[in-house]
Amino acid sequence: MKLEQTETGFTLSLNGRTILDHSDASPAIFVGYGQERMDMYRGNFDIEDYVIERRALSHTEIDGNRVSLSDASGQSPRLILTLVESAIKFEATDPKLNRLWVRIKADDDEHVWGGGEQMSYFDMRGRRFPLWTSEPGVGRDPTSEMTFKANVKDKAGGDYYTTNYPQPTYVSSALYALHVDTTAYSVFDFRQKSFHEIEVWAIPERIELFAAPTFVELVETLSSRFGRQPPLPDWVYNGAIIGLKDGANSFPRLDIMRQAGVEVSALWCEDWVGLRQTSFGSRLFWDWQANETRYPKLRDKIAELRESGIRFLGYVNPYLCIDGPLFEIADKAGYFATDGLGKTALVDFGEFDCGVVDFTNEAAVEWFAEEIIGKNMLDYGLSGWMADFGEYLPIDVHLSNGVDAKLMHNAWPTLWAEVNAKAVASRNKTGDALFFMRAGFTGVQKHCPLLWGGDQSVDFSRHDGLVTVMCGALSSGLLGNAYHHSDIGGYTSLFGNVRTPELLMRWAEMAAFTPVMRSHEGNRPRENVQLDQDPEVLSHFARMTRIYRHLAPYLKSLSVEAVERGLPVQRPLFLHHQDDRQTYTIQDSFLYGADVLVAPVWQAAQEDRTVYLPHGERWVHVWTCESFAGGAEIQIAAPLGKPAVFYRAGCTNETLFAALREI
Amino acid sequence: MKLEQTETGFTLSLNGRTILDHSDASPAIFVGYGQERMDMYRGNFDIEDYVIERRALSHTEIDGNRVSLSDASGQSPRLILTLVESAIKFEATDPKLNRLWVRIKADDDEHVWGGGEQMSYFDMRGRRFPLWTSEPGVGRDPTSEMTFKANVKDKAGGDYYTTNYPQPTYVSSALYALHVDTTAYSVFDFRQKSFHEIEVWAIPERIELFAAPTFVELVETLSSRFGRQPPLPDWVYNGAIIGLKDGANSFPRLDIMRQAGVEVSALWCEDWVGLRQTSFGSRLFWDWQANETRYPKLRDKIAELRESGIRFLGYVNPYLCIDGPLFEIADKAGYFATDGLGKTALVDFGEFDCGVVDFTNEAAVEWFAEEIIGKNMLDYGLSGWMADFGEYLPIDVHLSNGVDAKLMHNAWPTLWAEVNAKAVASRNKTGDALFFMRAGFTGVQKHCPLLWGGDQSVDFSRHDGLVTVMCGALSSGLLGNAYHHSDIGGYTSLFGNVRTPELLMRWAEMAAFTPVMRSHEGNRPRENVQLDQDPEVLSHFARMTRIYRHLAPYLKSLSVEAVERGLPVQRPLFLHHQDDRQTYTIQDSFLYGADVLVAPVWQAAQEDRTVYLPHGERWVHVWTCESFAGGAEIQIAAPLGKPAVFYRAGCTNETLFAALREI
Repeated sequence: MKLEQTETGFTLSLNGRTILDHSDASPAIFVGYGQERMDMYRGNFDIEDYVIERRALSHTEIDGNRVSLSDASGQSPRLILTLVESAIKFEATDPKLNRLWVRIKADDDEHVWGGGEQMSYFDMRGRRFPLWTSEPGVGRDPTSEMTFKANVKDKAGGDYYTTNYPQPTYVSSALYALHVDTTAYSVFDFRQKSFHEIEVWAIPERIELFAAPTFVELVETLSSRFGRQPPLPDWVYNGAIIGLKDGANSFPRLDIMRQAGVEVSALWCEDWVGLRQTSFGSRLFWDWQANETRYPKLRDKIAELRESGIRFLGYVNPYLCIDGPLFEIADKAGYFATDGLGKTALVDFGEFDCGVVDFTNEAAVEWFAEEIIGKNMLDYGLSGWMADFGEYLPIDVHLSNGVDAKLMHNAWPTLWAEVNAKAVASRNKTGDALFFMRAGFTGVQKHCPLLWGGDQSVDFSRHDGLVTVMCGALSSGLLGNAYHHSDIGGYTSLFGNVRTPELLMRWAEMAAFTPVMRSHEGNRPRENVQLDQDPEVLSHFARMTRIYRHLAPYLKSLSVEAVERGLPVQRPLFLHHQDDRQTYTIQDSFLYGADVLVAPVWQAAQEDRTVYLPHGERWVHVWTCESFAGGAEIQIAAPLGKPAVFYRAGCTNETLFAALREI
Repeated sequence: MKLEQTETGFTLSLNGRTILDHSDASPAIFVGYGQERMDMYRGNFDIEDYVIERRALSHTEIDGNRVSLSDASGQSPRLILTLVESAIKFEATDPKLNRLWVRIKADDDEHVWGGGEQMSYFDMRGRRFPLWTSEPGVGRDPTSEMTFKANVKDKAGGDYYTTNYPQPTYVSSALYALHVDTTAYSVFDFRQKSFHEIEVWAIPERIELFAAPTFVELVETLSSRFGRQPPLPDWVYNGAIIGLKDGANSFPRLDIMRQAGVEVSALWCEDWVGLRQTSFGSRLFWDWQANETRYPKLRDKIAELRESGIRFLGYVNPYLCIDGPLFEIADKAGYFATDGLGKTALVDFGEFDCGVVDFTNEAAVEWFAEEIIGKNMLDYGLSGWMADFGEYLPIDVHLSNGVDAKLMHNAWPTLWAEVNAKAVASRNKTGDALFFMRAGFTGVQKHCPLLWGGDQSVDFSRHDGLVTVMCGALSSGLLGNAYHHSDIGGYTSLFGNVRTPELLMRWAEMAAFTPVMRSHEGNRPRENVQLDQDPEVLSHFARMTRIYRHLAPYLKSLSVEAVERGLPVQRPLFLHHQDDRQTYTIQDSFLYGADVLVAPVWQAAQEDRTVYLPHGERWVHVWTCESFAGGAEIQIAAPLGKPAVFYRAGCTNETLFAALREI
């Protein structure tokens, strides 16, 4: 990084590219203070800021790698920037300041990606992205009937930027990345032509900058910065994780699916803890231990499955329901976040209240990791679980570390991941026990072995359907999350919107080319078609699990790449085709490793797919062997069972890929 | 007004009440600059501001009645305030400034009213009100299906603050009024407990302040400031203005209604200019002259009607359609607003384009007033018309006075009113010819003899139905608009939402106690029930016109009060009951003059109404003679035909009011 004084300010450049250009006439650094309004309703936020002052810091004084900024010459500095390696350290000398705006120099034709796990727009240029972990939203499109209804009913509609996993980090097509080291509410605004504006509702620790000659090296760098995941467990390669929540009845249903030729790696029963009945239908009982009424002799069942080479997975989240036995223990021990008066804060999750385990309290972390995840889950025989939630820390609770919950809210998903990873490590199961999370934030990479794309609607909709899962995988992958997957068939079924067999099949076709295949019955199993209820769906799914298993050797090699270099399994086309700018905005197809290009059909009633094939290679269509020169868009037949998948002619695994058409 | 220096700033008080309290620690005056985004779609606006700087002007220097404000001591002033009589003059010495925020001291329990013609909330405390003339919106409630659909279809849903007639003026329960002398986009934010924040997207000319010992005197003062209307024409007292747009068929339909006992003052045919067919259905032909194909021998028909004591009204708006003969004349003469290249700017009104007559061009005003309104309308025999639109000035056109259209947009309704008034005056018809407008802004009072409440939906909805008309009358009335009325039965019928006979009857019951009764067939006459299509509705309506006519002597006296003192015909209860704070938030009943209290039924399927009767009087129920002591809320039967109406016991017109129950 290079700091240079200019006539009325300074410029800061990284590998010769100007990042900051601050002058009296066109300032890049603004500070101020505001009063925010944040209303939360079951993980959905209504947030508004009242900016009382926002002003450029016009006067600059430079001393070595230190920049003092003040309102005007002769006035005392209000903000001090210090260059430390490739980061800008911020220090506010005016305690009143709680807002910072920084303008990063931008090119007209620049593209930006990242922002955590973004579900609607992979290329973020031209839009504004608040970065605050929350429920993803239903429909996520204010112009859709679905989102309108969800908003009116529960304020739960969401929008293009709502995500379980935000992260104040972006990768620029100008071959650099920028990360804001803060957990405060922040906004990336990419709507301006000549600059990106970064807004933080605090004075952040640092802004870190990364540059590299290639996107691949840039991703490697980010992955070492944020932490790497262990390899995929060996058992995962055996087939799909089958999600059933049908009590004891789940086992015979699994057998029928196996007899139908489904390759199975694990059975996942989120209802292993039992159910409670609410007006919304049956919900899980939020007290984390096996429920032997719903699953008689579960311990033995798990052992039996294990012998037949199938693992058993469960479910956990960071809350404890007030009517469960664990609540009393945690309450007595003071493990919960409290209200203003020191009493356990209760959060309403819809007809039942819960305590929030305070993960800033070491004793509470120890207890949750050892007593709950360690003993009740791992020792009981679970090989993994959905580590749900993490985006719900209420902003009005009091925490034992004394930090404002508004500043801990974004940090929570990472703390939650750490609790899970710690428990797994305590049993030496890292790389074998597999938990998966939808929530995330900076640093979750280090602790969470697998992301899942959250709760899509059971449809093909643009902002909440099948297609959004690719966007989530590509954006989070660039920031060092190597492993991503999703609920096959989607999750959220509301207002009469239900799955079609077609959706289930298209989703399975996509999932076969991701790190993990996992099915989900959805939030309304009875109203939505299930894998084992339609022979066509079942045989199609069985074949996809065979395809997944067939590709295991290749997937293993990608897992090795992930461990060694931090490269994601699912990659944007441009990652390996940097010189082909045509690839920069593509978000509905992806590279599965360097050698396979996958273009799932993500709309209903499609018989073919239009695909752009990157320049400079020949691409072989797996189902027909037909090969195409890259650098052009082609239209290819993609009936059910034959998603548009290509491999790079001449790549190492050519024979493996060529054999796919025999399956 | 009194200006006093304080330790680090100053205070400004009006009749002993502190209005401004500006100090270093808690500043009241902020300036800055921003870049707004304003997108217009057929009169609906999507507006967003990007505030680049907003800062308090902390350093104050006072010299007599002059306050210089700068960022800090030793720095040159950026804004100068000068006290001139009871106004604060603003002068920016920094040309970069285009935003001003002023905090007016507020009390916890203060109420504020006005803001032009507000349709949703009479008491504006607790909410934020952008002041920008626009389409009112359909449903005006983002949580309603109606508004959602209108937004998706045409961005036309609106919200609680969207109005045809905004005005940056409010009346405070602390017995003062404040007016911002600007046509720029502005916002009144009444959400804070200790201050009201006034935001202006320009440095305004002045902020004017008014104080008085009583609300009545305050309203009188505002009315002299903004201008007074002529008395109601004598012919209006004869009965209702019947709106029909059925071509020649309108005349026999009128006869049938008269035979049914309807008292008629005028026939209003907005289709007097003829129709055009579009996919939205038939629209008026926007070329302002009689269409003798649709209305054969119209001139003679008008004369005949006149002999039988009935006037004829038409329709006009400030646009000319490209396919009409008048367009060519105006285009040749250069009377239209232009695009950047000097060509006539064309505005799409839905399958037809129009030119916008440039009312900043004296010659264009002359021509429109003399050739169109003068010759084609008044000389032709029209006694009035709907002077529609005025809120549609596109913000990207160029005007002959060289002023930015963004600054002329809010000014347009008043210019439009002036053109109409000028034409009327040129024929010495002021006080006889009656035009009515929905659009307005500061100063419209002086030129527009009658407001109409705009395009309500044909329903009982909270934010776009019958009840909103009262809010419109009360808010605009406080600011010197003495005469208000509405489309009986509402106007907008969309997405299958149609009138019920009940709605028509409830609306007529309310209208009988307003300055003018006027019916409207609505935007979809064939799909919505009409007055002459239902015997019950027709006889109910006939009776209401007789009630209206019976009250004519009283209404005449109110018109005299309006001319002499500027008091509105419809008044908030508190206007005459200042000491009864219970009345301060009431917006669903009103005083009709000082002596009659009207509480219309504004919801469906109601048999009675809850009414608050002001303290210190006895109130006589007109239909039963039963009298009630004020100072309490009562519940009273209010079946169809018997709206909750009371008169003040012992008032001058007691016998007149008592006789109502004989009708």
